[in-house]
Amino acid sequence: MDLGKLDRVAIVGVGLLGGSIGHALRAAGFVGSRVGIGRRASSLARAMACEAVDEITLDAQAGVRGAQMVVLCTPIGEIEDMFRRIAPALAPHTYVTDVGSTKATVVRMAEGLLPARVRFVGSHPIAGSEKTGVEFARADLFDRALCIVTPTARTLPGVVRWVRGFWEALGGVTMVMAPRRHDTLLAQVSHLPHAVATALVNLASRGRAIDVAGPGFADVTRVASGDAAMWTDILRTNRGAMIRAVDRLIGELRCLRDRLEGDEARAVQRWLAAGKEARDEWVANRYRKKVLPP
Amino acid sequence: MDLGKLDRVAIVGVGLLGGSIGHALRAAGFVGSRVGIGRRASSLARAMACEAVDEITLDAQAGVRGAQMVVLCTPIGEIEDMFRRIAPALAPHTYVTDVGSTKATVVRMAEGLLPARVRFVGSHPIAGSEKTGVEFARADLFDRALCIVTPTARTLPGVVRWVRGFWEALGGVTMVMAPRRHDTLLAQVSHLPHAVATALVNLASRGRAIDVAGPGFADVTRVASGDAAMWTDILRTNRGAMIRAVDRLIGELRCLRDRLEGDEARAVQRWLAAGKEARDEWVANRYRKKVLPP
Repeated sequence: MDLGKLDRVAIVGVGLLGGSIGHALRAAGFVGSRVGIGRRASSLARAMACEAVDEITLDAQAGVRGAQMVVLCTPIGEIEDMFRRIAPALAPHTYVTDVGSTKATVVRMAEGLLPARVRFVGSHPIAGSEKTGVEFARADLFDRALCIVTPTARTLPGVVRWVRGFWEALGGVTMVMAPRRHDTLLAQVSHLPHAVATALVNLASRGRAIDVAGPGFADVTRVASGDAAMWTDILRTNRGAMIRAVDRLIGELRCLRDRLEGDEARAVQRWLAAGKEARDEWVANRYRKKVLPP
Repeated sequence: MDLGKLDRVAIVGVGLLGGSIGHALRAAGFVGSRVGIGRRASSLARAMACEAVDEITLDAQAGVRGAQMVVLCTPIGEIEDMFRRIAPALAPHTYVTDVGSTKATVVRMAEGLLPARVRFVGSHPIAGSEKTGVEFARADLFDRALCIVTPTARTLPGVVRWVRGFWEALGGVTMVMAPRRHDTLLAQVSHLPHAVATALVNLASRGRAIDVAGPGFADVTRVASGDAAMWTDILRTNRGAMIRAVDRLIGELRCLRDRLEGDEARAVQRWLAAGKEARDEWVANRYRKKVLPP
């Protein structure tokens, strides 16, 4: 994938992720036009003001026309409608990807709604934060971020190669797996942690324990400040894996509860030490593989 | 409390917290001697090398002799033995406090083992990190940190005032509550979050989902990199409140599970929105009250 060969990239939804793609494209040497497509004139104007895109339009079909690549950064709850809207305006060999946090549902929609000659494969760049809005967009958001690309039996290998190249050009490190596998793994490291953070905040605020919370609580619950509507869609479109992950966590907590009740000091310490070891190893590997920054 | 009136403060256990007390005392204008007491010559030497203390000794009794104030930063698992050791060497009106993360057990030990004329009250400065060791000690660790002071029916009001003044001199914001109340609240905002972080890491590392974890996972699980032995003691000495907190969390997760199973989108979104709102409000209040830094 050579960014120099592109002269028009359409970004549908210019918030934190879409805006960061715009900034990162420019930083990576893309000299063509970055077209920002959205549903609200005000957020498009802000994207233009901070130079995340070069053109803006509320007309999705006009926006994607002539683009060699389209990246959908639309919230999952609106993405089906957006696939439907842009489908008629896409040229036959346009590369299309999305950044949705769940993949099985989104990829199924894309394959059902986009013309067969469009080159689609789903993506999930694991970057971002609890912040939303183009004001927080950064050219280095994808720097060493893991970007998962999720082909199906229908995806041509060349499309996977091309979209991986796109994320790598923006600084990412890519990994390829099936949409369902992605959803199972992300339920455990992203969706369940999000739900748990919310549960901890809700419990602590009911009894006002939150008033004595410190920096540890701030970190554990940071993700709970993410957008509620967006996360509702994520949890809903990954319900099966989420339910299994919640059940496993409940099992783990029950086991801890029993050990505390029996005051099994050694078992508790072994369990805590296993967690510490696994996390420390993960942090060390992240650095070594240069997958993600500190 | 006037630091200028003190000429000898003993710090028992010079790690992250003890060392930070040493640095913060000097930064706050204390000109007397800071005595570092410990069980290992090597860590005492490191505390001396980074100028967290002015004198060091392995002999706890010699160390506390002549001190007007003694702060125990000993791990909870060793604190009973330390109270026993220093008790005979404490002058009648010495102020004594500790920094243990659970209070009911520690305060009961102190009141049982220290001479009645010693001025003891328990403390818990909510500061620190998953890091351990005097190398990470900082003069500003207590800056705007919440420091809880936990008197009992036996504590004289003047002692509470004095120990609050001590933490305030180091930059902290103090709050007073009974040891048991402290433990109930901290179970919810510190001990349970710690256990949950460990559970998430252990689950994610078993199925290798951890390999695709990103910055959100890093934050949610940061505390799980804390010292396993120290946290075993914290969870054990707060077993009752921990078991109740685990049960409440399991209840909350079961409720989420049912809502996901029934695909109750609105209920899920309301629950996520309540968490976001409570956390955002807490973060905003923290700034307003200047209790804790960003």
